[in-house]
Amino acid sequence: MSDKDKLVSKNEDFNEWYNSLVLKADLADYGPVRGTMLVKPYGWALWENIQAALDRRFKENGVENAGFPMFIPMNFLQKEAKHVEGFAPELAIVTHGGGEELAEPLVVRPTSETIIGHAYAKWIQSYRDLPVKMNLWNSVVRWEMRTKLFLRTLEFYWQEGHSAHATGEEADEWTRLMLAAYADFAKNDAAIPVIQGIKSEMERFAGAQETYTIEAMMGDGKALQSATSHFMGQNFAKAFDIQYLDDTNQLQYCWTTSWGLSTRMVGAIIMTHGDDNGLVMPPRLAPYQTVIVPIYRKDDERTAVMEAVSRIASELKADGIRIKIDDRENLSPGYKFNDWELRGVPTRIEIGPRDVAKNSVALARRDRPGREGKRFVSQDGLAQTVVDLLEEIQQAMLDKAGRFQDDNTHEVTNYDQFKEAVQKGFARVWWAGTNEEETKVKEETKATIRCFLLDQPAAGGACFYTGRPAKRIAIFGRAY
Amino acid sequence: MSDKDKLVSKNEDFNEWYNSLVLKADLADYGPVRGTMLVKPYGWALWENIQAALDRRFKENGVENAGFPMFIPMNFLQKEAKHVEGFAPELAIVTHGGGEELAEPLVVRPTSETIIGHAYAKWIQSYRDLPVKMNLWNSVVRWEMRTKLFLRTLEFYWQEGHSAHATGEEADEWTRLMLAAYADFAKNDAAIPVIQGIKSEMERFAGAQETYTIEAMMGDGKALQSATSHFMGQNFAKAFDIQYLDDTNQLQYCWTTSWGLSTRMVGAIIMTHGDDNGLVMPPRLAPYQTVIVPIYRKDDERTAVMEAVSRIASELKADGIRIKIDDRENLSPGYKFNDWELRGVPTRIEIGPRDVAKNSVALARRDRPGREGKRFVSQDGLAQTVVDLLEEIQQAMLDKAGRFQDDNTHEVTNYDQFKEAVQKGFARVWWAGTNEEETKVKEETKATIRCFLLDQPAAGGACFYTGRPAKRIAIFGRAY
Repeated sequence: MSDKDKLVSKNEDFNEWYNSLVLKADLADYGPVRGTMLVKPYGWALWENIQAALDRRFKENGVENAGFPMFIPMNFLQKEAKHVEGFAPELAIVTHGGGEELAEPLVVRPTSETIIGHAYAKWIQSYRDLPVKMNLWNSVVRWEMRTKLFLRTLEFYWQEGHSAHATGEEADEWTRLMLAAYADFAKNDAAIPVIQGIKSEMERFAGAQETYTIEAMMGDGKALQSATSHFMGQNFAKAFDIQYLDDTNQLQYCWTTSWGLSTRMVGAIIMTHGDDNGLVMPPRLAPYQTVIVPIYRKDDERTAVMEAVSRIASELKADGIRIKIDDRENLSPGYKFNDWELRGVPTRIEIGPRDVAKNSVALARRDRPGREGKRFVSQDGLAQTVVDLLEEIQQAMLDKAGRFQDDNTHEVTNYDQFKEAVQKGFARVWWAGTNEEETKVKEETKATIRCFLLDQPAAGGACFYTGRPAKRIAIFGRAY
Repeated sequence: MSDKDKLVSKNEDFNEWYNSLVLKADLADYGPVRGTMLVKPYGWALWENIQAALDRRFKENGVENAGFPMFIPMNFLQKEAKHVEGFAPELAIVTHGGGEELAEPLVVRPTSETIIGHAYAKWIQSYRDLPVKMNLWNSVVRWEMRTKLFLRTLEFYWQEGHSAHATGEEADEWTRLMLAAYADFAKNDAAIPVIQGIKSEMERFAGAQETYTIEAMMGDGKALQSATSHFMGQNFAKAFDIQYLDDTNQLQYCWTTSWGLSTRMVGAIIMTHGDDNGLVMPPRLAPYQTVIVPIYRKDDERTAVMEAVSRIASELKADGIRIKIDDRENLSPGYKFNDWELRGVPTRIEIGPRDVAKNSVALARRDRPGREGKRFVSQDGLAQTVVDLLEEIQQAMLDKAGRFQDDNTHEVTNYDQFKEAVQKGFARVWWAGTNEEETKVKEETKATIRCFLLDQPAAGGACFYTGRPAKRIAIFGRAY
């Protein structure tokens, strides 16, 4: 089903490269309602692997999944002042149900803090019930005007975790723990090095007291906020009466948090690792880790080759490798190589009559296109050879992305340097500006504070913009 | 968080027994919007196990998961005449988005045949693209007036599979294959014996040419339609222009199917297996298969007991058994036993100082409450003992449910017998009535045709109601 036209080069037109790659690689398509997305099986398989990798981390930390309704009474949104201010302009509203106009319109959830608040108020009674840590895998709706597949869609898939704690210290610690889980996932599964940090007041989640974030650098030097973790203080607990009896029988308000990662991560994977030949999937998340392409002309060649393919496939599967055999009859090997390169399958095994005779295969790695990444290896111990190569690719992809981020992050001390730095990457600066000054920098350069570093040096410095003494280093960048 | 009041007996008031059990066992709670449901972690864990068991079966049959939007343009619904007739009264309508009234209202999907049709028309070009078999795990909205947790809620969770084929034979075969997969899941994972059959014209899915169903008997003798598989013929293909070029380059309409199973299955598990002490979870789907309750009074006892618990827990986990250690400090063993019986955990291991000394544990099975189901077993080889017992319980639950269904299904030949049979179970009858006669029987007895048996005897019989010659045996029952 894929279009055979060549991709535009990513350096030539990154935006067009991205949009056409998402379609050509069969990750997703545009939905019939403006801004919506149809996630195709190949894209969904990647998302399922992301889900599994995160879900495992959540469950190891005692998080339990649950299912909450998509419809929220309008008045719930209004209970937390900043929350409604942030989300009101983006809401989808249900006004009719079952053929009648509703007495109170319903909101399609843009996020679930309010209905979680309602439930926690009912379910939490005593300190013995705490902490509560639940996660929802669902989709949410935010009426975005400028949409882009996976990065910003009217409806998107994500997980939203919600916890309630007895103390503020514990809640804040939890918020940071979930941020660390995201960073660990990004680094070790998605091969994306991320910067852990704290959002400025202006970029904070609507209703949060503090928002933690992981920020990644895309192939064009722009930043992608890849996941966030919010410390709510007692804002939502007070708005929804989430209270508990402590061990001295006193009624106390809980401290709550929420944390989320979405299908934006698919966009991050595309834009961090992709090249002019298409996607490059990190092995740990790749829907297929190895594609096997049989090569033959005559019928007797076919028999011998397919026997070897079938044996090799069994061995690879037995070792837990996710494989795809491309036995399509009507396509040339060359077409198939390009097709699977476009889809970013990390390794490719080619096997023809001569390979069968020599007990070998050609093994190619996606992250090094062309001859450089291809070698002939023995069929003996091939599963282990592939497992080792997948590990090597995973590490090489992380290293490459790390070098790119380092090369395009500059410490700057004045506004001219700053303007140059954010044209092609991140600026790392001392910052002591006000909200107004932050807005001015954004207007003039399109760059925003992605975050203040989570780990700050002890000594301060001079703000690059105002010259005032600054306590915190900020990362600025243009962002998706 | 659970209420300690005793459950009402299921024979006394089945409806009240069900409603209070769902709440007390922490499966779910009522949502703030009428008819919506909050699925709590224990209920969601059961649903996740159901999902995994089905997903495996789908993937073995080459089905791929995908993600489709919840919003569907209103005009899509209107393209298939019977489909809109069936669903129009139940729709939730979004009229406003992003602060503005929409030019065309959006429907929150009640099911996705229409938007799937739109996508398949775009994605399918040639016979080489066929068959297409996709599945969506999502939630859908139907504006139901009388709701009941898990059985009928305004929004419910399910999977909806959608396929497109080159021929009608292949599509019909696929529809039956998915029905068989559901029946296999129900029997072997949920321990629920089901009747496979075909719906009468009146009970058919809106827009289908044939609807296949699995029907189960609940503990009160009523039927629960547990999953359905629909053969659409070319109805949706023609409404949405799903066409392909065949191998002679002729344009042909596809043949489509859809098939679904929902969180109703959670209700089926509760109502098939539950007893007056609470839930009885089938071992293969149980969130916890074994709960370990340590018993001690003094500190030195605690140390010895917890050491044994920890060792046993590791052994059981290593064998893939899903376990829960109930080490809550403030509750008595007796309270814990009742609590886990209420939640239906299939097996319980009790271990106290004497058990530690004797290298034994007390092992209790949930499906046989009281002394009868409890015995002392050695700690040596305990994991295997538990694995074997779980298998035994799984089989015993299926057998018990099968006997109950058999005992409450009666072959009847006249209307008086029929009326008696459907008071407490199913009536198995020859049927040759018209739609009007089917409606009359429903009005007079509340019983409907649950299905015509998939496997029919060669010879026919006389319709119990009209006396006319009948070709098909129908199962009648009152239904949820």
